Amino acid sequence: MNQRYPSTLLEHAVNELASLPGIGRKTALRLALYMLRRDPSYTERFSAALLTLRREVKYCKVCHNLCDEEVCSICANPTRDHSLVCVVENIKEVMAIENTGQFRGVYHVLGGIISPMEGIGPNDLEIESLVKRVAEGEVKEVILALSTTMEGDTTNFFLYRKLSPLGVRISVIARGVAIGDEIEYADEVTLGRSIVDRTEFSLKG
Amino acid sequence: MNQRYPSTLLEHAVNELASLPGIGRKTALRLALYMLRRDPSYTERFSAALLTLRREVKYCKVCHNLCDEEVCSICANPTRDHSLVCVVENIKEVMAIENTGQFRGVYHVLGGIISPMEGIGPNDLEIESLVKRVAEGEVKEVILALSTTMEGDTTNFFLYRKLSPLGVRISVIARGVAIGDEIEYADEVTLGRSIVDRTEFSLKG
Repeated sequence: MNQRYPSTLLEHAVNELASLPGIGRKTALRLALYMLRRDPSYTERFSAALLTLRREVKYCKVCHNLCDEEVCSICANPTRDHSLVCVVENIKEVMAIENTGQFRGVYHVLGGIISPMEGIGPNDLEIESLVKRVAEGEVKEVILALSTTMEGDTTNFFLYRKLSPLGVRISVIARGVAIGDEIEYADEVTLGRSIVDRTEFSLKG
Repeated sequence: MNQRYPSTLLEHAVNELASLPGIGRKTALRLALYMLRRDPSYTERFSAALLTLRREVKYCKVCHNLCDEEVCSICANPTRDHSLVCVVENIKEVMAIENTGQFRGVYHVLGGIISPMEGIGPNDLEIESLVKRVAEGEVKEVILALSTTMEGDTTNFFLYRKLSPLGVRISVIARGVAIGDEIEYADEVTLGRSIVDRTEFSLKG
């Protein structure tokens, strides 16, 4: 629909809001009008938060996680196990794993996965820095926690070839039927894999 | 879920994005990370568009529609029928009616509807300016195009009492079964109203 906006300022704001992923023009208009209903200080604070993030954001020199200092709070924490490195695609995965409370090691954020379709090759990712980090000798195990997709598998394979000559232990996160899922509805590939990779039954759960 | 953010700058940005209506914390995080992936100029342009809108927005002196000048392009258009005023709740309704291409009159934007639940009374709306506009004599008909809700009906009734002493014609938009809707699924109130308010059949559609 070729919307006519009563104001070019409104139209520009809607254009920018609608450029965000998952935000359509109708939602963008609703958001712009919401800002107009709120006090001007709301929009000032809103814009300042985004600008400050974009201008002042830092990435950890060790693991490339987002942080406020030179080294992130996880890498700087002496109580974490620095010999155990979990390789993830992005910052979101660091947050998701941290929220499980199950991991006491450290991370390495690749910044993406190898995807020929999107033109992302190994050199676009933080792979060389991972190899260097492992070669320094402190790391004993690397856990590959990438998406269980074709691209994730390709990246896992590439990392395995790069890291295995260094004599480090390389593991991959368990794949199987999600907890709470009904077997009936699990897809065949996952179900087959969960049978092959079965673990010994334990009463501890 | 009590998310831990790797950076306070990221957390602030997520807080601001999640303060928008309909944007949850998960979407807010996705949007913030999207901005970090884009060039810094993207966030600069994005923020500038919102700030410029909020700082420089103007409302039409005549109809209170959003505009770039003192008077909006609809009110300033001499080919529109200035004796026919369509009363709407907000700017979105002006845009929706303009998009139908069916209306050649002008508008009056109330800026809301009377809602005791939300503490919005007649004095919070552009009602006095409408009465003044009608009293000046040029307006021949006022079309009430408010939501077909309890609040809309209350506002219609209030406006009717204020405007009818001025001798202007007052009409209300047609209510009935929406075009494309199946009778079977229409609600009883709408269906009943559509029978009472039936119009003469015409082959012109």
